[in-house]
Amino acid sequence: MSKRYFEDLELGETLEMGTYTVSKAEIMDFAEQYDPQPFHVDSEAAAQSSFGKLIASGLHTMAITQRLSVDGLYNDAHGLGSPGLGETEFRKPVYPGDELTVTLEPVRKRPESRPNAGLVELESRTRN
Amino acid sequence: MSKRYFEDLELGETLEMGTYTVSKAEIMDFAEQYDPQPFHVDSEAAAQSSFGKLIASGLHTMAITQRLSVDGLYNDAHGLGSPGLGETEFRKPVYPGDELTVTLEPVRKRPESRPNAGLVELESRTRN
Repeated sequence: MSKRYFEDLELGETLEMGTYTVSKAEIMDFAEQYDPQPFHVDSEAAAQSSFGKLIASGLHTMAITQRLSVDGLYNDAHGLGSPGLGETEFRKPVYPGDELTVTLEPVRKRPESRPNAGLVELESRTRN
Repeated sequence: MSKRYFEDLELGETLEMGTYTVSKAEIMDFAEQYDPQPFHVDSEAAAQSSFGKLIASGLHTMAITQRLSVDGLYNDAHGLGSPGLGETEFRKPVYPGDELTVTLEPVRKRPESRPNAGLVELESRTRN
């Protein structure tokens, strides 16, 4: 498949990015390095929390979402990087063993000030 | 210091979360796992990109911001987790060896539906 350009992404289409199963070991590894709150790194403390057991850092879920999106789209496109992220909601906890499925939907496109560049705003959903 | 509650965070105060120096090895490790776009994992490809050299994944910068915030505040507070993130802007690239400094500012507070719980919205800045 030839790499995709700005023009090739259609507003409203749903792009399937595949699935990723997150293990307890990976949840703890990520959290020990980047988000060592008790409910992410300590099973006993997590059992006492409102979540009932260990949950993945929200940033870890975002990182997994990014990985699937890179493999599924960004590395097959002529991407120039991202200027940021819109609002992110953590609607449900992610527990060890959960299988995450990511979809992307182009929701807005506009030309950029740089020549031959455009901005595509993607709505990303990560389902459990 | 006793742990901080909702009541202890003042609107408009600037909370210093400290600094973190990010190495090229860490940038590549994170990106190989979660964001393997060429300008995050491949020095030669990055040199050809508009960034001129390897840059950290935006999610990596967010993860470092989280780590400093956990060490500097969240693990010294009675936190119950976060419902999400507001808009995030990646204003400048983060290069290997950069020293990142994080500040948090409580910008909004409101009681939650759960008893004895409140939501504090924090504005986070990561400077280079």
